[in-house]
Amino acid sequence: MNRPLDGLGRSLGYRFQDAGLLQAAVTHRSAGSDNNERLEFLGDAVLGYVIAEWLYRLFPEASEGQLSRLRATLVKKETLAAIARELKIGDYLRLGSGELKSGGYRRDSILADALEAILGGIVLDSGFKACNKSIHHLFAARVNRLSAVDELKDPKTRLQEYLQSRKLDLPDYAVTELSGQAHKQRFVVECSVASLQQSVLGKGSSRRRAEQAAAENMLAQLQAGSVNE
Amino acid sequence: MNRPLDGLGRSLGYRFQDAGLLQAAVTHRSAGSDNNERLEFLGDAVLGYVIAEWLYRLFPEASEGQLSRLRATLVKKETLAAIARELKIGDYLRLGSGELKSGGYRRDSILADALEAILGGIVLDSGFKACNKSIHHLFAARVNRLSAVDELKDPKTRLQEYLQSRKLDLPDYAVTELSGQAHKQRFVVECSVASLQQSVLGKGSSRRRAEQAAAENMLAQLQAGSVNE
Repeated sequence: MNRPLDGLGRSLGYRFQDAGLLQAAVTHRSAGSDNNERLEFLGDAVLGYVIAEWLYRLFPEASEGQLSRLRATLVKKETLAAIARELKIGDYLRLGSGELKSGGYRRDSILADALEAILGGIVLDSGFKACNKSIHHLFAARVNRLSAVDELKDPKTRLQEYLQSRKLDLPDYAVTELSGQAHKQRFVVECSVASLQQSVLGKGSSRRRAEQAAAENMLAQLQAGSVNE
Repeated sequence: MNRPLDGLGRSLGYRFQDAGLLQAAVTHRSAGSDNNERLEFLGDAVLGYVIAEWLYRLFPEASEGQLSRLRATLVKKETLAAIARELKIGDYLRLGSGELKSGGYRRDSILADALEAILGGIVLDSGFKACNKSIHHLFAARVNRLSAVDELKDPKTRLQEYLQSRKLDLPDYAVTELSGQAHKQRFVVECSVASLQQSVLGKGSSRRRAEQAAAENMLAQLQAGSVNE
């Protein structure tokens, strides 16, 4: 424990200009007054925002509830502690003697708090952009794993994968109806799969939404059909 | 209701490039699928972070618990709804007929959600920096009111105000002891008020912290003394 902090800077992929900030970030409150509690508050906030925007952009069809649940899995204590372990933050923690004896450097909550505090420290050291970059670096593998979750893919992608996996041709989309004035337009799109001689309609306030709705309906129809086969 | 959105842009102090984002931000889920729920998720996150960093910098002596409580008062539904009312967001809301009839445009939760969604919209429209600026614009009066709260002032400021209010001379601070190596230094500072012939010590890991600790001790001593007078 208490290895020189340079090594931690390397595994973070971020070099602190103010080494005192990194030192404070790895200092648990049991080790003194210059600890990481305030930095953790800041780091928790910036992490919550960066992950929110990332997920928002990555999953354009996800509901607010889905986005919230995804974010919760990424920022929960256990996930943060796992990332902290990958960075070997436990080796650098500064703990009071009681926490040292009871193995505090292995505890999820202490590791997660230190990781958040480091992120808060980066905000103070170099500003939001640098911290945003660090968060993307630290969370990339886990976020990429999320985007493989089937539930989150948009319906057009899921329909395409469904058809490809059965060696069927890709669907066609065509706007069949357009009504309403600007900003209140309604689109009706027909989705058809020629080789299956099936077509369905989807409605929405934009062409994209109507296409997604049509793809969703087509998927439902195909899946219902395959159940009955 | 449903006034042209240009007016809202003016009271926000921010002009949307993509008017569709502002329109979505004021659209409640009761009014259709292109509503503000996802934007609200994003806006809530950016607001939480911006307020956190603002408070962190404004109150260098506040504990993590104090910062959390302050932030909670700023981002709670009632505060957001009050700001939304100042911006007359209710006049621009798009609600389904049920919500319209039941006066949804006056409801705290609907107003607060729309304000958050507008902030999320600004992130998408112009990026974080523009949104940060808007939040500072919208919350300045309320944050400034917080900084007048006595509890949050640092001890040196409180001691100075205490002495000034009694027409006493200002305290002196002097480092009387300095020990330990770099990054583990311990400072001892003596705070003295000459006209009262009183002095106390304070310790800390930096000169600033030791001074604040000494000021806190002096305040405690003076307040205890005045109780006994």
